[in-house]
Amino acid sequence: MQLVADNLRITAPPVQRAVEMLEPEPVRVLVKQCEKSGAQLVDINSGPLTRNPDAMGFLVKTVQETTRLPILIDTANPKAVLAGLEQAAGLCIVNGISLEPRKMEGILPLAAAHNADLVCYLLTPDSHVPAGADERLAIAAELFGHCEAAGISRERMIIDPVIAPLAWSDGGHRNLEALAVIRLLPEILGGPVRTIAGISNLTAGQKDPVKKMVMESAYLPMLAEAGLDYALLDMTHDRTVQTAIACNMLLNRGIFAWSAV
Amino acid sequence: MQLVADNLRITAPPVQRAVEMLEPEPVRVLVKQCEKSGAQLVDINSGPLTRNPDAMGFLVKTVQETTRLPILIDTANPKAVLAGLEQAAGLCIVNGISLEPRKMEGILPLAAAHNADLVCYLLTPDSHVPAGADERLAIAAELFGHCEAAGISRERMIIDPVIAPLAWSDGGHRNLEALAVIRLLPEILGGPVRTIAGISNLTAGQKDPVKKMVMESAYLPMLAEAGLDYALLDMTHDRTVQTAIACNMLLNRGIFAWSAV
Repeated sequence: MQLVADNLRITAPPVQRAVEMLEPEPVRVLVKQCEKSGAQLVDINSGPLTRNPDAMGFLVKTVQETTRLPILIDTANPKAVLAGLEQAAGLCIVNGISLEPRKMEGILPLAAAHNADLVCYLLTPDSHVPAGADERLAIAAELFGHCEAAGISRERMIIDPVIAPLAWSDGGHRNLEALAVIRLLPEILGGPVRTIAGISNLTAGQKDPVKKMVMESAYLPMLAEAGLDYALLDMTHDRTVQTAIACNMLLNRGIFAWSAV
Repeated sequence: MQLVADNLRITAPPVQRAVEMLEPEPVRVLVKQCEKSGAQLVDINSGPLTRNPDAMGFLVKTVQETTRLPILIDTANPKAVLAGLEQAAGLCIVNGISLEPRKMEGILPLAAAHNADLVCYLLTPDSHVPAGADERLAIAAELFGHCEAAGISRERMIIDPVIAPLAWSDGGHRNLEALAVIRLLPEILGGPVRTIAGISNLTAGQKDPVKKMVMESAYLPMLAEAGLDYALLDMTHDRTVQTAIACNMLLNRGIFAWSAV
């Protein structure tokens, strides 16, 4: 399981200011902190960038000048996706599409044309989180068909089963179903497929960082053991990061070293 | 998943002194602390008590005068098991047997005669931890046969898949196999069966309590999600206990309340 930093997001005031002023330094500082904390990829969540889609190009350039970590171009605006892809050096991941028509039409062809990997969210066409595993697996199969038709193979897809906030009345149920989805995907799609999950969603609405970390740290090992490939998380949540590293030690059938804990 | 305190063990100096002097107060203090920390059962690990098996009776009496929590009578000495069973009020759990002949002959009949629940360790007859899931499941089936023949039904059995220390060269592999065992047991034994695991085994040999808690807290959610019924653990490991409580919140498909975290 690899750790993807979700800290570079437009809702963070330093990032918002950096985007508005095209000022690279706050972005560089943030990216260096994430890398130091153990991030193995960086998600660049720019928001819609309705007025200035080219700002994604600025963000991608700034991140890639700062680190060699792979990036995820995370926006629902196709113009911003394109600006990011045109700026990006090397392989990158577009984050992402769902069955929502404007994403299918606007973003899927861009990922295909630029040979990018592609995050596919298991959401209904009107962007709801399905409650049951069966419905999510049917959506995965449908997304798989669309990707194949666009020339994106299973190896380039990364499925996001979508973590529900615990505060939802059936959030717990939905998140157990997400584990089943991760386990069943290879069978449904006819072979292994990578998966990603946004851990911060779990605690949406909760302010206390300790409470957030307690719940993240209990859920993350379940995801890891189910086979999750990428955990998208807040790298300042040291306890969650520590848990993720410990999970990798437990799941690696090789030799364990206490010195690495 | 219920929390079983493993703190009342003869290797703890206050317990050893209490047993030697038949002095109840240190035992009472320890049991109250465990209950306050969230323990739902208390394991009474007296060691072999070769010279004074009746000390188990003293321990059982003292614990039951202090708390209403159910107890586990944890010793390999049949005389001590009997002393505990004769003293115990209400249902209790004998911890436990394996295919080792002296346990099969000495302890199994006592549990049967006293209608106690019985922990069954998935160990080879010479007390080794099998590496693979298949071998453990075969041992579970054999133990099941012995219990049935002795009049102990599946409902009274509690299977311990035996957690291996991480420091063992293949400890990680063995502990992933233990998860598979927990998931497969109902199929092998023809119906649901309760399971227990000694979490402290995982970190045997490590002194740093923080390192211990990091690894325990990463493994426990995997066990919980696999279906573990009883986690036997050190109740002073606050981070592990917090994780266990969080796991129960995640695995309970009912309504989640942040106020309870």
